[in-house]
Amino acid sequence: MTTAWWQQPSATVHAGFADGALERQRQLTKPAGSLGQLEAIAVRLAALQGQARPRVAEVHIGLFAGYHGIVAEGVSPYPQAVTGQMLRNFINGGAAISVLARSLGAHMAVVDLGTVAPLDLPGVRQVRLGAGTRNFAIAAAMTADQCQQAMQVGRETAETAAAAGAQLFIGGEMGIGNTTAASALGCVLLGCPVTELVGPGTGLDVKGVTHKAEVIEAARRVHSGQTGDPLSALACFGGFEIAALAGSYLGAAQAGVAVLVDGFICSVAALVAIRLNPSCKPWLFFAHQGAEPGHKRVLDALGAEPLLALGLRLGEGSGAALAVPLMRLACELHGGMATFAEAAVADRPA
Amino acid sequence: MTTAWWQQPSATVHAGFADGALERQRQLTKPAGSLGQLEAIAVRLAALQGQARPRVAEVHIGLFAGYHGIVAEGVSPYPQAVTGQMLRNFINGGAAISVLARSLGAHMAVVDLGTVAPLDLPGVRQVRLGAGTRNFAIAAAMTADQCQQAMQVGRETAETAAAAGAQLFIGGEMGIGNTTAASALGCVLLGCPVTELVGPGTGLDVKGVTHKAEVIEAARRVHSGQTGDPLSALACFGGFEIAALAGSYLGAAQAGVAVLVDGFICSVAALVAIRLNPSCKPWLFFAHQGAEPGHKRVLDALGAEPLLALGLRLGEGSGAALAVPLMRLACELHGGMATFAEAAVADRPA
Repeated sequence: MTTAWWQQPSATVHAGFADGALERQRQLTKPAGSLGQLEAIAVRLAALQGQARPRVAEVHIGLFAGYHGIVAEGVSPYPQAVTGQMLRNFINGGAAISVLARSLGAHMAVVDLGTVAPLDLPGVRQVRLGAGTRNFAIAAAMTADQCQQAMQVGRETAETAAAAGAQLFIGGEMGIGNTTAASALGCVLLGCPVTELVGPGTGLDVKGVTHKAEVIEAARRVHSGQTGDPLSALACFGGFEIAALAGSYLGAAQAGVAVLVDGFICSVAALVAIRLNPSCKPWLFFAHQGAEPGHKRVLDALGAEPLLALGLRLGEGSGAALAVPLMRLACELHGGMATFAEAAVADRPA
Repeated sequence: MTTAWWQQPSATVHAGFADGALERQRQLTKPAGSLGQLEAIAVRLAALQGQARPRVAEVHIGLFAGYHGIVAEGVSPYPQAVTGQMLRNFINGGAAISVLARSLGAHMAVVDLGTVAPLDLPGVRQVRLGAGTRNFAIAAAMTADQCQQAMQVGRETAETAAAAGAQLFIGGEMGIGNTTAASALGCVLLGCPVTELVGPGTGLDVKGVTHKAEVIEAARRVHSGQTGDPLSALACFGGFEIAALAGSYLGAAQAGVAVLVDGFICSVAALVAIRLNPSCKPWLFFAHQGAEPGHKRVLDALGAEPLLALGLRLGEGSGAALAVPLMRLACELHGGMATFAEAAVADRPA
């Protein structure tokens, strides 16, 4: 039996560099531990990058979009066409993630994995695995082949970033209906009630959230018995962009590039990636805890310590982009501060 | 009776610009409210700056240092001399705030308000109100005159920043022993038990925290009846740098410059400023909730919604500096994103 690419081990984590970085943090002119999570970031990055003074200057964003058949069940207040329209907005620089990428000097690759009416947009990689996923209220969202192709596209995006010198990879997503897909997928993987992972998404009212939960509950019954492994669950309930995200996280970890995971959808994709191959977990940083109620549930299940909690619920990778300055400043503090000895400052008695 | 400078009204907040900014946020290509706290930042800054598209390009940091007589009671694991040594480190670029200011392109003014052995450091403004405050276990930390002079220095620092075009002012502090001063002052102002505001500071153990609480409790008894108004409480328990911070916040608000408040010490200074003149409150943003347990108590009392919670406990203005990129990106998103009409993206049905 051959081993699938996503089961191959992730790149080596250099524990020795973590030890060295931790020792350096203790010598910097501040009370030990007083920079909180920023110290942990620098130490982790040192181990991942195999560098005494890690950097996150080169940031690459992979932005994956796809249509969702489940939208036919009335689970989003926005029309399906918005996904395609936003692809144009990403390229033209008007979307939140476009503004953030520009400001951060981050590279952005936009991939259309399957929209109903594909737009011929220069600058968008067209893969077109189908005119959107199928409605998972009726049938599996993706065939096994579609699902693996989407993962492969994500992997390629991360590998291209790695080859271009990325020190941090961010996955973003756009897909009207994808909180419904992510909630269904997350519930199946965590074995938890639908209500724990269903929320308003882009802005459903209470009635809409109830309907969304009912749609997912019914779909779980339709597919019961066919979702025993993470790959089957992904194909059954996921979206093209969710599969691509999972593939990109696995590909980044294998290529030795740290990942900053965005919001609810991305965290569910990270859950899929970790279930498929736990060796990717050390490579994943979690950027924020968003407003979607299920996000905290998924982060808790992953033991994640998100950096921000700003009530975000936009997606696109925007929450991860907002956390990039913290990672950069963590590296600059680690590399640029003076030690007690260098600055001739008295440390506390041992 | 003349009105003291700190009782003069703060600059006008332009409510009309808040309305306009809120309307623009609704038209940007994202679900309404999906950028969470970042939307609120942009709307508030628009009102404060009287600008449709506010900016925080120009950031000025005022870093205030002083010695604390209360250190004689054994309330810090660090020797008093560290405050002076750190002044040199600030100027030489090796401290956390130095690294952050450089990275952010922020201007930094360092003020020594009173160290035991003043260092002749080029680049440090020497004010020298005394060889540190008095030990408030025995006598009021400052005379009324010293306290007002320290406030005046803070005001001048903020006014200089305003005159240089600051769009955001950050106050930082350095003073071994100043969590003890801030805890005592905070308890008196909030009328709460000492235990609610006492914590490990730079790193006391449990026994040390208990001793610190006992020192403050005893000092409260010594000064009972003399701390009925915020100015008396500030003089009694505060430090030169805490009075300067309060003065800088009041001065910034009067000069029309938004403030980003740092950690526990700064939040207590903000509490003093607001008690002295509530009109400064709209000008104060709260950067983070730190690791010092009492910080949350003070933030809650102020109804503050901090941007970060990274377990920081360093001071120096470092937590505020770390939040600057979020404020900048909030402005860039507000000013740079396309509207639904501009991008030809369908909004949700009204």
